[in-house]
Order: sequence, then structure tokens, then C-alpha cells
Amino acid sequence: MLESAEQGLTLSEAAYERRLRTLRPALLKAHFALAQTNRQVLVIVSGGNASGKGELVHRLNEWLDPRSVTTSAFWDHSDEEAERPHFWRFWRAMPGAGKVGIFFGSWYTRPIIERVTKARRKRDLIPELDRIVALERTLTDGGIHLVKLWLHLPKAAQRAKLKELEKAGRLAPTDWEHFEQYDRFRRVSEQALQHTHQPNAPWHAIDAGDRRHREVTAGRLLLNAMEMAVEEAAAAKASAKTSAKTALKLTTRKRSVAAQRTTRSYVPGPSLLDQVDLKQRLSVSAYETALRDLQGRLARLAWQAREAQVPMVLAFEGWDAAGKGSAIRRVTQAMDPRLYRVVSIAAPTDEERAQHYLWRFWRHLPRDGRITIFDRTWYGRVLVERVEGFAPVADWDRAYFEINGFERQLVDHGTALAKFWLHVSPDEQLKRFKERQRVPWKHHKITAEDWRNRKKIPAYREAVEEMLARCSPAEAPFTVVAGNDKRFARVQILQTIVDRLSRTLGNTG
Amino acid sequence: MLESAEQGLTLSEAAYERRLRTLRPALLKAHFALAQTNRQVLVIVSGGNASGKGELVHRLNEWLDPRSVTTSAFWDHSDEEAERPHFWRFWRAMPGAGKVGIFFGSWYTRPIIERVTKARRKRDLIPELDRIVALERTLTDGGIHLVKLWLHLPKAAQRAKLKELEKAGRLAPTDWEHFEQYDRFRRVSEQALQHTHQPNAPWHAIDAGDRRHREVTAGRLLLNAMEMAVEEAAAAKASAKTSAKTALKLTTRKRSVAAQRTTRSYVPGPSLLDQVDLKQRLSVSAYETALRDLQGRLARLAWQAREAQVPMVLAFEGWDAAGKGSAIRRVTQAMDPRLYRVVSIAAPTDEERAQHYLWRFWRHLPRDGRITIFDRTWYGRVLVERVEGFAPVADWDRAYFEINGFERQLVDHGTALAKFWLHVSPDEQLKRFKERQRVPWKHHKITAEDWRNRKKIPAYREAVEEMLARCSPAEAPFTVVAGNDKRFARVQILQTIVDRLSRTLGNTG
Repeated sequence: MLESAEQGLTLSEAAYERRLRTLRPALLKAHFALAQTNRQVLVIVSGGNASGKGELVHRLNEWLDPRSVTTSAFWDHSDEEAERPHFWRFWRAMPGAGKVGIFFGSWYTRPIIERVTKARRKRDLIPELDRIVALERTLTDGGIHLVKLWLHLPKAAQRAKLKELEKAGRLAPTDWEHFEQYDRFRRVSEQALQHTHQPNAPWHAIDAGDRRHREVTAGRLLLNAMEMAVEEAAAAKASAKTSAKTALKLTTRKRSVAAQRTTRSYVPGPSLLDQVDLKQRLSVSAYETALRDLQGRLARLAWQAREAQVPMVLAFEGWDAAGKGSAIRRVTQAMDPRLYRVVSIAAPTDEERAQHYLWRFWRHLPRDGRITIFDRTWYGRVLVERVEGFAPVADWDRAYFEINGFERQLVDHGTALAKFWLHVSPDEQLKRFKERQRVPWKHHKITAEDWRNRKKIPAYREAVEEMLARCSPAEAPFTVVAGNDKRFARVQILQTIVDRLSRTLGNTG
Repeated sequence: MLESAEQGLTLSEAAYERRLRTLRPALLKAHFALAQTNRQVLVIVSGGNASGKGELVHRLNEWLDPRSVTTSAFWDHSDEEAERPHFWRFWRAMPGAGKVGIFFGSWYTRPIIERVTKARRKRDLIPELDRIVALERTLTDGGIHLVKLWLHLPKAAQRAKLKELEKAGRLAPTDWEHFEQYDRFRRVSEQALQHTHQPNAPWHAIDAGDRRHREVTAGRLLLNAMEMAVEEAAAAKASAKTSAKTALKLTTRKRSVAAQRTTRSYVPGPSLLDQVDLKQRLSVSAYETALRDLQGRLARLAWQAREAQVPMVLAFEGWDAAGKGSAIRRVTQAMDPRLYRVVSIAAPTDEERAQHYLWRFWRHLPRDGRITIFDRTWYGRVLVERVEGFAPVADWDRAYFEINGFERQLVDHGTALAKFWLHVSPDEQLKRFKERQRVPWKHHKITAEDWRNRKKIPAYREAVEEMLARCSPAEAPFTVVAGNDKRFARVQILQTIVDRLSRTLGNTG
């Protein structure tokens, strides 16, 4: 791929000025149009040393509307970044809806540099590149348009350029060191580019020897991406209107059947919920003994995890009134408040709504040694958003894959992850709803929506079954909690957490 | 203040249960009402070791609606926190509108502990407490209701409690060490409490020996604060309506005169803008030489600042079309894109709107060794918000004090701070407006609003003069830039930045 960028293309000053006269107004026009959509454009500026990456970043900023562009440079880690899964720092910097983001450095930097310096084994490169392919897939599927630029200089050109920079006193301390590795760097880069050159996220290798040529080329690629983003946003809007009209002519049932048939190939397996023995119960005394024991163990394990710098993520989902809140309290009671944080997932804020749906969960991931408890989670995508029709079929159907990728990031980073579905029977739920209406300080927990949701139990059940089946890989299994007896449920949850955390600590320490 | 909390007050189980029966529904009711307002309640849970702080945090969480409460524990710094002004970590965790925030640990922790351990000199304690008073003043003036709880245990009670915890294996490693310093800790705490016991942010010392007593006391204080917040929000709304009605009866001019008279005592001094010689000019060749020299120096200084871990904040304000954007580009061109970040201040997002107006600027402060460039700034409060009437007089009049406090935090942390007002004459502005309308890629820079603003030049001028006069303390002076000649302006700006940064680097290293 890189030879294609070794033709020594140049652009005269006059030709450059001529191109800019059409390019600059076109870029601004497209940028303003983009700002009206829910799409994002992410430009990745990468390449060898002294290839003009910094200059290009400056130029793109100059050409765009400064209010709708954010530039992020990825360089040395802060400890907050190092103590979270690798992709966290990139998610953190993701541009919001209607914005252009410029990434100077990216998720390619680390794998390439580490492979060049042999800090990473050969056999680890491909899996890392695969994770990048999955990430980019998740982003582009979510409406983020990627412009991946690789500024390339042949060896002789790079040497000349470094000497020039050295004279101007603008050389970074490590530049000559890196140059010694030129051939190796080129080989590894070529491999990385080829592996991640995908239809949804192609690479553009740019002949970087001439400033004017590389700037105009990059500008046109960015323009193209913005225009495509605007067109796709318009098309999506139009098609949403049409399908809404068609949908109106069908009954709800027929509509959902039709949607499933046309777009999905998932075949449900045997029920997982039916396998749960909801009759399981614990006596008060057995409960109190177990609770005391497990809370004590969890208290010690949480401190031990803090020492060992192992993070933990607990994900709670379940039927309304299944006892999530009170179960979470039994967990938090056991832990020093400095060690954990509970994140209740309700309606997204507008900063969250302007981002990929996974962004709001990435932002709350714990640092090493800390614990985040999610009260409702990213599974909302395949539960409420699916059942209520908030997300189109294609979006939630894809989410199983995206969620597995997200959790894979957590586990790869060394996070102890436990996921719960709190299961109760419809009868038990009804009993609890009625109790909530009776007790004054429980009253707020029951709303008209809860009653409405009860009517959708079959649809939710279908969604839960599919979620349990498709999102329980060996490294991140779901625990279905037998929730009809609250005492039994709490002990089951605490036991699961204690087991998971001990195992993770055992593995890492 | 602490003796008042040594009466050994207790509450029986029965009395506790009885109180909870009214307290819990009242708390929830108040919490739901609070969620409908733009007010925040911030509970600071502090006190000696083993006084039940953690337990109280758990309990308050249990009593409140989990969706509208966030708990933050302040403990060891992350490097991202240590590399910013001390208050950054607290601003970062501030609850949004309608929310209750619980701070476990707070801005009191560091000064007290450092004074107890003698890491801080005696004479440094009072200035730090004064800064806390100013911070709390800023918060409460901004609609944040503070509930400052100090859980107190007499010495003997603390010893007994520590032994009990030790048996249960729940002692933190440093607890006995701290106990040896009990008397000193008590003395320093007493001093800190008395100094910061202000009408807008009073302390509540709670007798912490009995769990039930301390919980109910804290619960009632929180209830009281939430109810007051709700009442004040309602009162503010009602008075805004009334004054809007009254205002309608007055002409704009009379209205503004009346508002000034009734509420402000500021007397303008001699004009600062008139002292600027707008005739100053630079030839093309002198400009190019100076630009090359200054950009080169800035490039080296930025790297040197990075080495020395000195952060820099550049604040740009100025008349429309005064050349902020192009001046900023001349600054950024000189620097490695990894070192700086430009933040364009436009309309706040809803997460920002739910916070104190300074929050959005705190969130963008650079880490040590990095640079943040604000294109428009916190001065919007005393410029556009004042002139357009977006903020009531009392709010923007207070802002001079608040802004000085904010910048004081930056400077105290060692930040190189430069603030610019880009000044151009009305005639020059008109010329540029017309040019913007002519040139295709400048066209987007000129809007109907710009023309409207021109009619308000006298009001803006008044606001600018006051800002320059009141917000130029020795440690953070404004630089008024002679902007009629763009070349002169750019060189003046670069020169100022280079001088400021060299001086800061000289001072620190």
C-alpha cells in the first residue's frame, strides 16, 4: 500500500492556490451542513516521523469552522488513561454529533510502535489489529465516518526532512532514534495498514514529500467524507419517514414479524430463563449468616483489589421490581465508599445523545483498583430500545456483537466483570408492585410505565432470552439470579461477585 | 464548636424507627421537588476517623432517589488531578442541577491533614481556608446549597471504636497512626471549622458516638437544605416574573440605569481603551522577521514548559472581527499539536447548563506541561451576559470577584496565564465586516448578530472597561491589544505570551 505513495507527487504554488479557492469554501459548506446532522467525521492523521502530520493538523483546523472541530493528540498516557482499557482515551475524545474530530495519533500508534521496538510479540499484533477492526466497525456502524490518513515519506526523503528540522531546532528528542528503525517501521506499518484496510474504514496513503500536495489531498478526502456523511444522514432520514408510513399500515404484530423476517437470521435456542429454579429460598437465619460472611469477604477483597490495582465492573439488569436497588445496596454496604461508584443509567444527557451509544458507558469505566456498579447498563440497547422500538432492528441486532467487543476490552484489561439478570416471575412482580403502592417511601418506585411494561412481558422475555444466549461468552458470562426470594437473590449475587473477584485476583496476583 | 458535639446524645431503636417513618418519605418528597429545580445540594461528609462517615454515606444513598444523587470520594490524587489546580477535582465532581452530591472527603481534607502532619506551615493554613471560603461563596451564590457535616467523636470514644473495627478486620492501615495525633487533629479541625463557619455555608458538628443519632441528625439537615433549595428556587422564579413585568413598563435605558443604581456601587475610572494607540503598525518585512523569531522562541518554550511541567492558559476576548481566530492560529502554528488544545466557547451543552457557569471552564483546564487556548472565555459572564441581560445584575456584578478567584487558583498552581482583549476601532470593524461579506470563505464569519452587536458598542464598551479595570490583578493582568493593524496585533500577542511563559519558567525552574 505504501509504494503507491512514493511517486513524488507535487503541486505548484499556483495550482495549490487555485485548488484552495474551490476547496476552502466547499469544506466550510460541507462542515456547516454536517453540523446539522447527527453524524460525526473522525480524521486520523498518522504516518512516519517528519511527514508533516502536525502541519496538516494545523491546516485542517484553519480550513474548518473552529466551533465544530476538536483536535486530540494521543501521546504519553496519563495514569487515568493507563489504568483503563486501551480504547478508553480514544472514546473519551470522540467528537459529538455534527462535529469533525481530528486525532493526531490514534489506536494504531501503540501497536505499531510496540511491534517496531519489539515490546510486543509478533503473534500479538494480529489480535490487536482485529480489535481495531472491530472498534472501527462499531464506530462506522454508529454513524461515525472515518478518514484514515497515512502520511508517507520514502527513506531518503525522511532523512533529508529530519536534517532540515534539526537545523530549525524543531526535532523531537527521539526522532533520530526512530529513523534508525525506518525499514522495520515501514514493514510493520504496511502490515497494519493492509490488515485494517476495510471497506467501511479504508486507508489513504498520501505522498507526503510535498506540503501542498499532501494538504490538498487530505483536504479533498475530508471534504468527500463530510459530503458523504451529510448525504447518508439525509437518506437515513428519508428512509425513516417512508418506513414509518409503511409501518402505519400494518398492525404492531405483523410489523414486528415482518421486521424480524426481513433483517435477522437469529434462531432462538432453548429458554434459559425457564431453567432458573425460582422456588429457591433462604431462611432468615441462613441469610443473615451468609450475608455477614460474604460482605466481610467482599470488604477484604475490595481492598485487596485496590492493592493489586484490579478494577471491577458490576452490571445489573432485571425485571422491574426484581430487587436491583436493594441488592446493589447489600453490595455497596460491604465496601469502603472510596472504592466504588454507582452509576444509574437513565435518559442520556445531550452530550451523551450526541455520541455513540456506548460512549456513556466508556466514560464511567473505573480506574484500576476501583469499582463501578451500573444500575441498568449498555444492555438497554437490546432490551428497552429493542422492545420499545427506539432503535431500528439493524441497530440493536448489531449491538450483541458490539457489546461483546466492549466487554472483551474490559476483560482484556484485567477487569473483574460480573453481569446479572435479576429474574422474577410475573406473579411475584405483581405482588411487589402492589406493595410499592402501599408503602409511602416505596411509592415513588412504581409508575404508570411499570404497569405498561407488564403488558410487554412476552416481548421483553424474548429480548432477554436472546441477550442471555448471545452475550454470555466464556470470559463474560451472565448470571441469571433467582429473584423471587430476595434473600436468596442477594446471597447469590454476593457469592458471584466474591467468586469472580477472587478468581481475577488469583489470576493476576 | 466541637464541644457542642460531645454531649453523648443517643437515640433508641424505637425512636429511630419512629423518626424514619416521617423522615424518609419527607426526604424523598423533597428530593423529587429538588429535581425539578435548577438548584443543587452538596453534602460534605467529614470528621475524624471511625466516626461513621462511610456508614452515613451509605445511609443517605439509601434514603434518597438513586437516580438523582452522586457520591464522590476524594482520596489519593490521580496524576490528572495532581497536575491541575487543587479545586479541579471537586469541580469535576460537582452535582448538576436538581441533584444531590455527596462528597466523602472534600477541600477540607488536604489542609487539615497537611497541617496535622506538619507538611504545611502554620502561616499557610489561613490563606488556604480563605480560598475555601471564597470557593464556597462562589458555589452558594451560584445556587448550590451546602450541607457541611462534621462527625465528631471524643478521644475515648474514638479509641473504643477503633478497637471494635480492628476486631472486625475493617481498620484502614493508617488509622492507629492518625489516632496518635488525635489532640492535634482536633485543634486544627476546630480552627478550620471556626474559620469557615460562614452564614452562607455553616458547619454542623454532629455528635457521632451513636449511629442512630448521627444518621437522623444528618438526614434532617439534608432535608432542611433540600426544602430551602426548593423554596428559594420558587421564590427566584416568582421574583423574576415580577421584575420582568415591572421592567416591561420602563424603557431599555431607564431600566438599565435603574438596575445599576439600585444594586451596584462601582464607579468607572479613566478609560483604559482610550489609552491604546490604535495607529501602531508593522511593515510586512518587520512583521515577518518578528513572527519567525517569536514563533521559534515559543516553539522552544512550549517544549521547555512541557519538561518543567508548567501549564499555560491563554484567554482570548475581543470585538467581533478583531482578529482572534487568525491571531490564535499564529500562536498554535508555533506549537506541537500534542502540547495544546483550543477550546471554542459557544452555547453551553445541557450538562454545562446544569452546572455553575465556571464549571465548563474548570473542565478544560490543562494538565501540567500542556496549554489550553480559550477562544472566548469566562469573561462572557461580564460581557455578553451582562449586555444582553442573560444574567441578572447581581450575578454578573459578583462575577468579577468570582473570576479573580478562579484565575488566582490557576496562578497559585503555577500556571502561566495570559489574557487578551483585542481592541479595534468601530471604523476598522466595519471595514472588516464588509470584507467578510465579500470573500467566500470568510462569509460564514459574519452574521446578522454581528451587525446587531455593533449597535450595542457603547454598552459593550462600558462592560469592557469595567472588566479591564476590575480583572487585572498583578498576578493576572489583561493585555489590551492594538488590533487595527493585524500584523502589529499578532506580534504583540506572541511577544506577551513569550514573555509570560519565560517569566513563569524562570520563576519555577
